[in-house]
Amino acid sequence: MTRFWEDIEVNVTFPLGEHQFTAEEIIDFGKRYDPQYFHTDPEAARFSHFGSLVASGWHTIAVGHRKMVDALYAEAERLKSLGAEPGLSGPSPGINFMQFKHPVRPGDTLTYSMVVASKRPSRSLPGWGILFNHLQATNQNGVLVYRGEVVGFTKMRHTPLGARIAMTLSKLPGLGWIAGRRNGQ
Amino acid sequence: MTRFWEDIEVNVTFPLGEHQFTAEEIIDFGKRYDPQYFHTDPEAARFSHFGSLVASGWHTIAVGHRKMVDALYAEAERLKSLGAEPGLSGPSPGINFMQFKHPVRPGDTLTYSMVVASKRPSRSLPGWGILFNHLQATNQNGVLVYRGEVVGFTKMRHTPLGARIAMTLSKLPGLGWIAGRRNGQ
Repeated sequence: MTRFWEDIEVNVTFPLGEHQFTAEEIIDFGKRYDPQYFHTDPEAARFSHFGSLVASGWHTIAVGHRKMVDALYAEAERLKSLGAEPGLSGPSPGINFMQFKHPVRPGDTLTYSMVVASKRPSRSLPGWGILFNHLQATNQNGVLVYRGEVVGFTKMRHTPLGARIAMTLSKLPGLGWIAGRRNGQ
Repeated sequence: MTRFWEDIEVNVTFPLGEHQFTAEEIIDFGKRYDPQYFHTDPEAARFSHFGSLVASGWHTIAVGHRKMVDALYAEAERLKSLGAEPGLSGPSPGINFMQFKHPVRPGDTLTYSMVVASKRPSRSLPGWGILFNHLQATNQNGVLVYRGEVVGFTKMRHTPLGARIAMTLSKLPGLGWIAGRRNGQ
């Protein structure tokens, strides 16, 4: 969430809301990014191994990411309305795993949620911490559709002295600008 | 590629072509699936850790997936034009890792490629094999932008006898339909 790294609680489930997948939306995403016939052609999809049109796994993930970002921004607004300073989310160095467990068919409503499974200070970006975010969605029958671990940087409220020195050094000519130039963890 | 599992060569790089990312396209994807300000607002993005507008990592991946699917279909057409029978791609059980190594900025042209790093028969879907596909993209300066391993099912030309018996049994009432109902590897 958009909280400072120090304030982020581990192993607390954060609901991200629901999304119903229509055939139109499944086909639209399929035509853009995953034009396999079982994502774009309802008739032909009946004869696929899925037995019907299904959403691209990338579509299922992208909607979940959108819901996570919406939740981050809503949380920032909530904190500001309470007079608190929200944190700052940074780039993502990547995905540690993503599992597609069950097909998403037209009319399915997915319930998304996330948990910060663990966190640690970044070794490459001084003043930033790393979050290991577990995302998942279940369908209207409670069946797990996908689950995965996405890694993300988030700003620390208090930058350790060593990190502050490293940041200052990194801004000197010839030493490069560390932040935004290196995506290592 | 859309070849039968037996015919797929391991450790051969398959070029997937290029894509230039425009600011408009970066913002369009950002507004749909990743509305963080550094993906949607060129002015505000100047003050982000990236220093400019950058493409969402999901956008970079989705374009790569599109290019892979286009290559699969083109390869199937090529095989058909030679009088050969193309194979059949199946579902993906997931992603084993995905690393975002460098930002993608407006005007960047990425060159995508894939390699089947390894393959083995599926343990859960009789008659299907598993491919471990390594995808990556480099920008116009030769800098690696992302790399990852995506797992995919692909049909075998010859289904082993044991697998044929299992498939027949799985179609009897009460035993369920294995294919399409289980996404395990």
